[in-house]
Amino acid sequence: MDHFYGGVEAGGTKFVCVIGNSPNEILAEERFSTTSPQETIQRTIKFFKTKKEELKIELTSIGLGCFGPIGLDKKSSDYGFITSTPKPGWKNTDIIGPLQKALKVPIIFDTDVNAAAIGEGKWGAGKNISNFIYFTIGTGIGGGIIIDNQPVHGLIHPEIGHILISKNPMDQFTGKCPFHENCFEGLASGPSIQERWNISAEELPPHHQAWDFETEYIAKALSIIICTISPQRIILGGGVMQQLHLFPKIQSKTIDYLNGYIQSALILENIEDYIVPPKLKNKAGMLGAIALAQSAVN
Amino acid sequence: MDHFYGGVEAGGTKFVCVIGNSPNEILAEERFSTTSPQETIQRTIKFFKTKKEELKIELTSIGLGCFGPIGLDKKSSDYGFITSTPKPGWKNTDIIGPLQKALKVPIIFDTDVNAAAIGEGKWGAGKNISNFIYFTIGTGIGGGIIIDNQPVHGLIHPEIGHILISKNPMDQFTGKCPFHENCFEGLASGPSIQERWNISAEELPPHHQAWDFETEYIAKALSIIICTISPQRIILGGGVMQQLHLFPKIQSKTIDYLNGYIQSALILENIEDYIVPPKLKNKAGMLGAIALAQSAVN
Repeated sequence: MDHFYGGVEAGGTKFVCVIGNSPNEILAEERFSTTSPQETIQRTIKFFKTKKEELKIELTSIGLGCFGPIGLDKKSSDYGFITSTPKPGWKNTDIIGPLQKALKVPIIFDTDVNAAAIGEGKWGAGKNISNFIYFTIGTGIGGGIIIDNQPVHGLIHPEIGHILISKNPMDQFTGKCPFHENCFEGLASGPSIQERWNISAEELPPHHQAWDFETEYIAKALSIIICTISPQRIILGGGVMQQLHLFPKIQSKTIDYLNGYIQSALILENIEDYIVPPKLKNKAGMLGAIALAQSAVN
Repeated sequence: MDHFYGGVEAGGTKFVCVIGNSPNEILAEERFSTTSPQETIQRTIKFFKTKKEELKIELTSIGLGCFGPIGLDKKSSDYGFITSTPKPGWKNTDIIGPLQKALKVPIIFDTDVNAAAIGEGKWGAGKNISNFIYFTIGTGIGGGIIIDNQPVHGLIHPEIGHILISKNPMDQFTGKCPFHENCFEGLASGPSIQERWNISAEELPPHHQAWDFETEYIAKALSIIICTISPQRIILGGGVMQQLHLFPKIQSKTIDYLNGYIQSALILENIEDYIVPPKLKNKAGMLGAIALAQSAVN
């Protein structure tokens, strides 16, 4: 029997399950809404069991890129759990346990954004770059950080959506994060745009004031990241970033905020090669899960 | 002849030159004010030449922990230079070149804060911790980041003093950074305290309102760092942090800003083991330069 890798992009809105080896070798793929933990985990198990039989293959490992915060410390009792998520019903959910029990295959666990970053590093806009960051700006905001070609974990893992940023004094919106008054996610996620303007991000015209606020908040966050980990590239993915008109605005505003302090030709002269969209587009998450599965083996 | 390591803590205010092997084996030490580049570099050269002769030793290498921003990319023409510093007279100064030419010994170059972080990692509060950050909060503000036991460089290197933070609405001070209106260094460095209150940080009583602002800005920066790289420990050094009454205030305020989102017992139950002073005290910089010299050999 042939061996292949499994991947799960476990997002707060949808799960994407996939079997394959690379962007050009995807054997099976299924996406479904994230409902209750039990139902969602059962659908995931069913996907892999059914497809393995249909395709007559075995899985070497499964990469699980998961929304969070999650427990990544193998020595901790919350390893494999989704921990303090504000998502109803999902707080303190063991997600690795039932998958491993049912599928009997090694599961490599990381954040959804670290998985996407690993995928972009292997096949996309992070290829051959040792230090970079992948952001998703959509339903939530998160970032996966690669330093010396490895995803950063640390004490918990990065939770970049929750960095505090200063609000524009004209912005009357109080922010959508239940934990923090002025965090990046609370001010700039898709749902925050929707609630602030009473219209979804997709429906907003490119010249709407909403995009000025959005540009400001994203550029402030990027300037903070540049002064913190000094990435060699910044990849901006997620639903909100499908508004491609945002890229030149964000590039220019980030330079404004840095104000000449960071003397790098890449930033000052080639910003369009520095702040870029994901090459794997909206498949960064699911392909990243495959790359994550492979990372334990390679 | 015996072999020893040289270290230079090249700060914007003072230079500390040292020869030794470890905190308990310091053979020579000299500190002098940072004046013009030429004079300061000549004094550094003279220290090593004179002491080598007096002590009848050779140097294996010299670690140079330098104020910045600096050029760390060996493939770039600004390698070994101090680049866009606002310090008068020091912009675009080649510091490695003249030292290497005069002393004919390998010079290991990094930021002052990365050197201090390496020192704390080897002999101090970062010992046996793979991911941590060392801050200096004094004349300037900077941070050295260690991830997987290595200092982070990236595109340039971290410049954490220049992350944007939101100002307290009661704070009338416009900030002291010539580049950024509301950056951490501009709002919270020693000189910014001095200018805001017309009295130096050392003379301010512990119950002065100055410390409430200081606590707020430091805690905001720490909450940003925790959400970014998720360090396993935060070491706070530098002149301002010699006000030890700040530690409990900063610890408590950082927990407030995180507001329960980061579920870590270390933060929630043992914050006094998480946000700590440097163990090497005000010698973190000079011992870090020795550790930096050794890092290339070991």
